[in-house]
Amino acid sequence: MGTTTKKRAGIIGGAGYTGGEAIRLLLNHPDVELAFVHSRSNAGNPLYAVHADLIGETDLTFAADVAEDVDVIFLCLGHGESRKFLESTPIPAHIHIIDLSQDFRLGETVNGREFVYGLPEVNREAIRQAKNIANPGCFATGIQLGLLPLAKAGLLNEVHTTGITGSTGAGQSLQSTSHFTWRANNISTYKVLQHQHLKEIRRTLQALQPAYSGALNFVPVRGDYPRGIWITSYLECDLTLDEAYRLFEEFYNGHPFTHVSRKQIDLKQVVNTNKCLIQLEKTDNKLVIHSIEDNLLKGASGQAVQNMNLVLGLEETAGLKLKSIVF
Amino acid sequence: MGTTTKKRAGIIGGAGYTGGEAIRLLLNHPDVELAFVHSRSNAGNPLYAVHADLIGETDLTFAADVAEDVDVIFLCLGHGESRKFLESTPIPAHIHIIDLSQDFRLGETVNGREFVYGLPEVNREAIRQAKNIANPGCFATGIQLGLLPLAKAGLLNEVHTTGITGSTGAGQSLQSTSHFTWRANNISTYKVLQHQHLKEIRRTLQALQPAYSGALNFVPVRGDYPRGIWITSYLECDLTLDEAYRLFEEFYNGHPFTHVSRKQIDLKQVVNTNKCLIQLEKTDNKLVIHSIEDNLLKGASGQAVQNMNLVLGLEETAGLKLKSIVF
Amino acid sequence: MGTTTKKRAGIIGGAGYTGGEAIRLLLNHPDVELAFVHSRSNAGNPLYAVHADLIGETDLTFAADVAEDVDVIFLCLGHGESRKFLESTPIPAHIHIIDLSQDFRLGETVNGREFVYGLPEVNREAIRQAKNIANPGCFATGIQLGLLPLAKAGLLNEVHTTGITGSTGAGQSLQSTSHFTWRANNISTYKVLQHQHLKEIRRTLQALQPAYSGALNFVPVRGDYPRGIWITSYLECDLTLDEAYRLFEEFYNGHPFTHVSRKQIDLKQVVNTNKCLIQLEKTDNKLVIHSIEDNLLKGASGQAVQNMNLVLGLEETAGLKLKSIVF
Amino acid sequence: MGTTTKKRAGIIGGAGYTGGEAIRLLLNHPDVELAFVHSRSNAGNPLYAVHADLIGETDLTFAADVAEDVDVIFLCLGHGESRKFLESTPIPAHIHIIDLSQDFRLGETVNGREFVYGLPEVNREAIRQAKNIANPGCFATGIQLGLLPLAKAGLLNEVHTTGITGSTGAGQSLQSTSHFTWRANNISTYKVLQHQHLKEIRRTLQALQPAYSGALNFVPVRGDYPRGIWITSYLECDLTLDEAYRLFEEFYNGHPFTHVSRKQIDLKQVVNTNKCLIQLEKTDNKLVIHSIEDNLLKGASGQAVQNMNLVLGLEETAGLKLKSIVF
Repeated sequence: MGTTTKKRAGIIGGAGYTGGEAIRLLLNHPDVELAFVHSRSNAGNPLYAVHADLIGETDLTFAADVAEDVDVIFLCLGHGESRKFLESTPIPAHIHIIDLSQDFRLGETVNGREFVYGLPEVNREAIRQAKNIANPGCFATGIQLGLLPLAKAGLLNEVHTTGITGSTGAGQSLQSTSHFTWRANNISTYKVLQHQHLKEIRRTLQALQPAYSGALNFVPVRGDYPRGIWITSYLECDLTLDEAYRLFEEFYNGHPFTHVSRKQIDLKQVVNTNKCLIQLEKTDNKLVIHSIEDNLLKGASGQAVQNMNLVLGLEETAGLKLKSIVF
Repeated sequence: MGTTTKKRAGIIGGAGYTGGEAIRLLLNHPDVELAFVHSRSNAGNPLYAVHADLIGETDLTFAADVAEDVDVIFLCLGHGESRKFLESTPIPAHIHIIDLSQDFRLGETVNGREFVYGLPEVNREAIRQAKNIANPGCFATGIQLGLLPLAKAGLLNEVHTTGITGSTGAGQSLQSTSHFTWRANNISTYKVLQHQHLKEIRRTLQALQPAYSGALNFVPVRGDYPRGIWITSYLECDLTLDEAYRLFEEFYNGHPFTHVSRKQIDLKQVVNTNKCLIQLEKTDNKLVIHSIEDNLLKGASGQAVQNMNLVLGLEETAGLKLKSIVF
Repeated sequence: MGTTTKKRAGIIGGAGYTGGEAIRLLLNHPDVELAFVHSRSNAGNPLYAVHADLIGETDLTFAADVAEDVDVIFLCLGHGESRKFLESTPIPAHIHIIDLSQDFRLGETVNGREFVYGLPEVNREAIRQAKNIANPGCFATGIQLGLLPLAKAGLLNEVHTTGITGSTGAGQSLQSTSHFTWRANNISTYKVLQHQHLKEIRRTLQALQPAYSGALNFVPVRGDYPRGIWITSYLECDLTLDEAYRLFEEFYNGHPFTHVSRKQIDLKQVVNTNKCLIQLEKTDNKLVIHSIEDNLLKGASGQAVQNMNLVLGLEETAGLKLKSIVF
Repeated sequence: MGTTTKKRAGIIGGAGYTGGEAIRLLLNHPDVELAFVHSRSNAGNPLYAVHADLIGETDLTFAADVAEDVDVIFLCLGHGESRKFLESTPIPAHIHIIDLSQDFRLGETVNGREFVYGLPEVNREAIRQAKNIANPGCFATGIQLGLLPLAKAGLLNEVHTTGITGSTGAGQSLQSTSHFTWRANNISTYKVLQHQHLKEIRRTLQALQPAYSGALNFVPVRGDYPRGIWITSYLECDLTLDEAYRLFEEFYNGHPFTHVSRKQIDLKQVVNTNKCLIQLEKTDNKLVIHSIEDNLLKGASGQAVQNMNLVLGLEETAGLKLKSIVF
């Protein structure tokens, strides 16, 4: 396929972790060209001045301006910054926006732009038709993927969830909780029962099971590793383990990145991939659902590229067949 | 205090992790002499042939036989092995037994020996009078310390608990789940909702709150670090946060190793100490209790030495003022 | 490109780390089909029964037999096992062998098969013409890439090298030195000044600088992380830093995976990639060379696929544009 | 021993890592009372507001002023800050100063105060007579302890040293190289062949072997763990391995913290202790010396307390019988 037929993508906020991962994915994408990476503070510097691993892979430099000859723009900005950017920067209407912040996940609009919630496992067709995408949160992706089949079957009730996240989830700013000496071999929690992703999770679940009003109890844990999210949810459920497995397997049949495993899973099976793996257990009347993902890929930039593929009519898996780190 | 007045202690099963920690504590204990360390497979070798960090600290060798001129014997054996040992080895009646296995935690006896459950925060006076001690499990210690004040106040109902443990909890045998390449940066769960410690936990809680029959839902997690247990439990509770804090502070007032923190805690505050720290949070009608400990110390050998101090009439904290690793 | 035109590859010994990485690379290779993965002990099982991260990526099962309708076979066997395999298993002469063991790196032959040392940065043209390839050792690759330009310029003398390797370098067998509890946060050395890779390193260097007879002092270190090799070498050298940089930059100009960085490098820049990065420093009369690689990729299976590409006349980088883990 | 007979110690700069470790050691010291901990920025706050692991151990608060009724003051300040402090703050002449910075290690004086270099293994008697101590650097301690016996025997020539340090060596300030996401699973070097400790090392070695003028080549490495220093040095040496071992064993005979091991050592044997372990190897004409220590204890605050014990006429090991973390 000649490069003249390639789609073109730009990135706003290319100096952070999600921006960096979007760059890495797009540089190797077979059908999309990385047209520009915008960063005010780094304008003129080569990408590898910030993302040092890219040395030898590209000579692209950070751009001070936003080019308009692109098909899609990724907003890899902090929460609140995406709205500010779109309010202050005119983007031609033909350009798709894929926003990785939480600014438009609950139905918010800006300058008339509406956003489809970019969780392909529940919204694939809507995403294909969408102009703009609100990419889901990292915890939100993993928790929802563990609950969607139950919601669709009307089986949700009070849910108890623990989620453990790698340090990349906290971004690259220097904080005491991201200091190596503090975090190595350490465990702590934050925003217990109060995580902001609960809103977008409940919104999706209620779209599938409108009467759902049970509590979503979520304990977020800071893990002492860089990458990946482990989620264990459980709830009361009358299904046998086999019935539950069949419910999940049918739901995810044909979804290219979300797979159901009848064997025990562990987090590193998905690190550095765009996959989500799900495993079930049943004890007494409780169904246990484990779901795992890479917080920066299926939980952020990988899913954003998956959404881009859908929005642009490309193969859903294009550029996302990634070798796991595994060890 | 002259060494002639020192109490004497022996260790059965001194080659493993809990045996090694018992050795380290007793070598520095001001009032107790380490009389022998029994290990059939290592008899005749110096302790530092197995516990290499002890080089320069002791010239003691592993003993093939069990000396009888001791005041107390620690059984640092695998589950099931303590019972076998006591059934096959005559131990004079005057010697106290402190068993670290789970063999006698639920009221079991052997050769007429009865065992007091060695959780000083609830059984201190009984321990002082006891001949034999069943030392609590590591998860069991941390979970119970997080729930005891509520049980005493009759406030327990269904409890939701996540516990993350370091790899030392799995002992020193070579297994795929303790292989460095696998476990580094990895997360997994095991025995979800089915952990064997639930029995001893329920037994203690029901002694304080006899009518308690709520579910104890416990998700054990393998952490990717060697040492320490993080526990988060939550349940419905009408107390305000301040009321709950006062309930806990009153309960643990005067207990030398278990402390209530009104600031956020993190696991490394207790690693390499005999302490348990507890922190509370309140969201809507849910009370959240975080409790942390070192699984090999307060969760095993440290608590065993604490029990020995009580049984032998020594200062409860003797030999247990340990410098935390903290970083 | 239709699949009918794809080359076909087989793997012998597909259950280990290097076999697993070869599988992962070949499953995503654009021009090569993974025809079979041989493993006696796992025959009939799906690949993901052993390499659990492959769930959802392939339904291929391990094969009991060696198919002959392939273009190339990778031997991912232990040292000594490759020779035994080739002595006992007739492989048709048209099939290329790429051996990852150390059995044929010093000019050894088997059944008349000769092997070209598969370090493309020095042997690219010979590799293109070769029937069989002896893939270099992991440490050997990194150390040589740090010294090749100096050898070619005749500037080598006594070399002082420290190499730190991740735990994957020791394979997946369960040993005390790969036990998580032992290795986490730990450092140790092995085979100090006696590592077996010194032979193949000296052989390559002497081919470039025939009079070279200086000592190669190599201190191998076990790092407490899974993946990657850091090498620092230094030697007396009269070049200025800039002259040295120009020597290295000229030498590696056009080599697709080995790059010279004038900025400080760190190991994670190359983890999960097939790259080698090199950085120089100069203090007094000593030239310092840092070289880094992923021990399982550029140090093993990645370089093997690179060699396969050369041997089969494919694009050298095909299937090897890998996203680094970086964080 | 009654508290009335205890010596009294103060700490200047108690909010950092070395200050925190000094606090932890002094709180448990049998013969010394921690009289005050000075910290301008934290004055009035309890120690555990900064060193959270101390909750339940002390109610001491940070002091705004420097009390004068003490026997010894530890300066746990940054390099350059100790000199400034002593120039601006009058300290009564009877108070011993133990300075942990590098300000007085090369014979510098301030207000007429002279400092003895506080390496007991070479300067014990001078330390016992000293008013003020310049506590050695962390790398300097480990490297010197590996070379002292050779220097005394006049056997030093060009030395090649690699040292790997935990992140605590870099202190608690937030920097990109101490960011968890960056440093986890990563390796890098700094100040290669240019580390500032080389000066104090050479000074000590030349005191023992006056004619020594060989190069000290030192490659400092940032390890991806919090605590501990691993050092491997090698040099040409005609001694057999056994002769070398006997030289080292005789030299360190009677030294309570530095031990020679004829078995392979690993870093965690000394973490959280005040010990230094040394192991030797011999290959061809090269003698290899491994030496390990905890950078914050034998490499800083532990050695400072050891020096205090000597200066105050206490048992050298008092308060320093520490349980290693080991796992």
